[in-house]
Amino acid sequence: MKNNDISFFFNPKSVAIIGASPVAGKLSNVIMNSLKDIGYPGKMYPVNPKYESIDGMECYQSVADIKDNVDIAVFCIPASTVLDAMEDAVKKGVKGAIIVSAGFKETGQEGAVLEEKLKKISNETDIRIMGPNCLGVFDNISKIDTFFILRERVKRPPAGGLSILSQSGSFAGTIMDELSAEGLGVAKIVNYGNRIDVGESDCLEYIVGDKSTRVVGLYMESVDDGKRFIEAARRCAAKKPVFAIKVGRHEAGISAARSHTGAIAGRYEIYSAAFKKAGIIAVKDYSEFLDACKVLSKHETAGGRKVLIITDGGGMGASIADACGDLGLAVAEPSRKMKDTLASKLPPFCAVENPIDLTGSVSDKDYVMVLKEAMSEYDLAIVMVLWGPPLLTDRLIKMLKDASVEIGKPVIICSPGGEYSRKRNRMFEEAGLPVFSSPEEAARAAAVLARSR
Amino acid sequence: MKNNDISFFFNPKSVAIIGASPVAGKLSNVIMNSLKDIGYPGKMYPVNPKYESIDGMECYQSVADIKDNVDIAVFCIPASTVLDAMEDAVKKGVKGAIIVSAGFKETGQEGAVLEEKLKKISNETDIRIMGPNCLGVFDNISKIDTFFILRERVKRPPAGGLSILSQSGSFAGTIMDELSAEGLGVAKIVNYGNRIDVGESDCLEYIVGDKSTRVVGLYMESVDDGKRFIEAARRCAAKKPVFAIKVGRHEAGISAARSHTGAIAGRYEIYSAAFKKAGIIAVKDYSEFLDACKVLSKHETAGGRKVLIITDGGGMGASIADACGDLGLAVAEPSRKMKDTLASKLPPFCAVENPIDLTGSVSDKDYVMVLKEAMSEYDLAIVMVLWGPPLLTDRLIKMLKDASVEIGKPVIICSPGGEYSRKRNRMFEEAGLPVFSSPEEAARAAAVLARSR
Repeated sequence: MKNNDISFFFNPKSVAIIGASPVAGKLSNVIMNSLKDIGYPGKMYPVNPKYESIDGMECYQSVADIKDNVDIAVFCIPASTVLDAMEDAVKKGVKGAIIVSAGFKETGQEGAVLEEKLKKISNETDIRIMGPNCLGVFDNISKIDTFFILRERVKRPPAGGLSILSQSGSFAGTIMDELSAEGLGVAKIVNYGNRIDVGESDCLEYIVGDKSTRVVGLYMESVDDGKRFIEAARRCAAKKPVFAIKVGRHEAGISAARSHTGAIAGRYEIYSAAFKKAGIIAVKDYSEFLDACKVLSKHETAGGRKVLIITDGGGMGASIADACGDLGLAVAEPSRKMKDTLASKLPPFCAVENPIDLTGSVSDKDYVMVLKEAMSEYDLAIVMVLWGPPLLTDRLIKMLKDASVEIGKPVIICSPGGEYSRKRNRMFEEAGLPVFSSPEEAARAAAVLARSR
Repeated sequence: MKNNDISFFFNPKSVAIIGASPVAGKLSNVIMNSLKDIGYPGKMYPVNPKYESIDGMECYQSVADIKDNVDIAVFCIPASTVLDAMEDAVKKGVKGAIIVSAGFKETGQEGAVLEEKLKKISNETDIRIMGPNCLGVFDNISKIDTFFILRERVKRPPAGGLSILSQSGSFAGTIMDELSAEGLGVAKIVNYGNRIDVGESDCLEYIVGDKSTRVVGLYMESVDDGKRFIEAARRCAAKKPVFAIKVGRHEAGISAARSHTGAIAGRYEIYSAAFKKAGIIAVKDYSEFLDACKVLSKHETAGGRKVLIITDGGGMGASIADACGDLGLAVAEPSRKMKDTLASKLPPFCAVENPIDLTGSVSDKDYVMVLKEAMSEYDLAIVMVLWGPPLLTDRLIKMLKDASVEIGKPVIICSPGGEYSRKRNRMFEEAGLPVFSSPEEAARAAAVLARSR
């Protein structure tokens, strides 16, 4: 039985770069820069028989020549040469390998044979293997970054409580980039690619006890061991929200998933059932995954699915109601008594059903009044702010944040529009309120919090 | 029988502002500024017994005192005073009234009585009425803008071929703002609010012959005369693409739509059938409406629903395939012969199914080669560009545009990500290619072009 502890991947004292190169743009060179740029605090050992030193560091002929212990080795060499180098790493007693190299099962028969041999080494020895065909580990807390993506092209996000576990490298990289642009805080992003050894279950087992991770997003094309996965996910979801996307819902998607990480994607319904069983919040697609990242970075999940909609534009409010209905949220009217209270405090042309329509005559305090009064009857709120109405001021942003704190229930902002709105959306984000730029995104975020899917 | 020609709303030689005010921020003042700012070329006549002149213009006691003919009168006075002013306008022979004022059917019983009286005037006289409770007309070609939304808050879009007809004012204003931010060109935006007279059918009949409008987007909460609408829409859709959203798909949405423009929203299925009959492209929600605006501004509709997906990231490509499957697009594999051709021209680790996965080793010319080779077997393409791969350059943007022109079939770009991608998305837009930042948006745009819903 192998050691299930994979924590050394997330706080290695030493990293060997197998196939290190001084040539800018080469995989290994990008990775060494990623490690430097994040401020990796441990020791880095370049390994490549072609060089004596790289960037002022001694370069080793083989991993065996390194005198120090090596916690993890990052393989950036052609697929055909990985097996030999892996034997060296095993002999050296390296704890973990991250095989960045592509050219395995995802490319056909020849690669599949190589991958089987690699799997055999993994099964028969103590080394834990991440990959092949992967980006590896980005850890914003312990400061490790093995992603071979140029920082000029894909920015790294600030530190925070969100961790992403992904089978797909392009998904991991793209989400990283989106989160950076949105200013959302990330603890870890892990990409295990073809997953011959370390996969979602190992990572979930590790992350359940990881104090820096407050919420977990999971991208799956397939699962290796269904039973173990459900067990690991259930334990993790009991401690922190876990949401997951399963790609390959249609025949075409399944075929795409198969060719790119060599995975056999199972039927979607099976995954839906497994997610439910494990207490995972299922998200349908990329957009919803992003919505979940945003909203769960700011709010705990909601106590139920009764959503209050407040708007200052009737038609746009109706679109939110439609979208909420699509997602199984309950857009119930306020009680008779509540309606009377609201009506007594608002101008006669306001609608006090749900959506509450404050109309173009709205002022900042109307929003706050409705939130404070009506939220006793709801689990969460979507507040639509269209900035056209002339009485609205930027003070509304802080007022809504304060009200949401006072109420203690999730408040989601929906503010579509152009330049003026987009600038204020950034201010909402900075104030700590999740903000979305379409009725559908806001409704999806609400559905995530209400776990209404 | 009334005159169905409503063209004077779109090129009035003279506009009277009933209730004109020199006070900044007042409805009428905002509207006068809107007209000035767009460069309205006709005559403007302020009307208000309280003032002798406003902003250097003579101010009239009543519309009757204006010596010139008055093509349209914009009513910015309290609902209770609209009837009297309307009698004056009718006597004066004003051709069209835009009643901006709220406080009619949408606010309850009292307002409903007022609205009925207004309707009676409309039925018994020659005047055509837009509103009440509306923004009126924004015409980017003839230069008229009666929208009482501050330009500082909601920017006006550049001139172009897209026209929007909307029952909802907040929808019209928000879409206007989004289109401005996206740099999409607009011909007209019309909002008729409570629609006691001029509505979607009149506008469609006018717009069918409007040379400046190339594509029409329609926002509906309800319909006044179903038969006439289908007839008008069918004639319009035969000449230019018409897409439509029907809000109020669920009970809550229906209730919201009713309270805000006083409309009775019918069952969604009836609208779906009507849209189909009229040849209208149905869009489901706000986000999809925006996608349709973007993609139909750049492309004609597609010949069928066979979509080619090209990607440089397998997992992200799989998400596009999933989204296309959801929307009824056909993600079919290339023919055996085509696969062989593609495989012979690409590195062995590329997947030549559909999606075609060019992987992180992609270079600019790979995209173009695949497009030119494979598009003979497809109706349209979604090209995903993740900018991480180091060999990709900004030249790709023009190369893809040129290829799409040469092929003569729609090419949709999908490029999610952060700052680096978002900057390039703007470059794609400027090059004339529609670009979307999620797999789901790109797939929805493709479905709009393929009319696959």
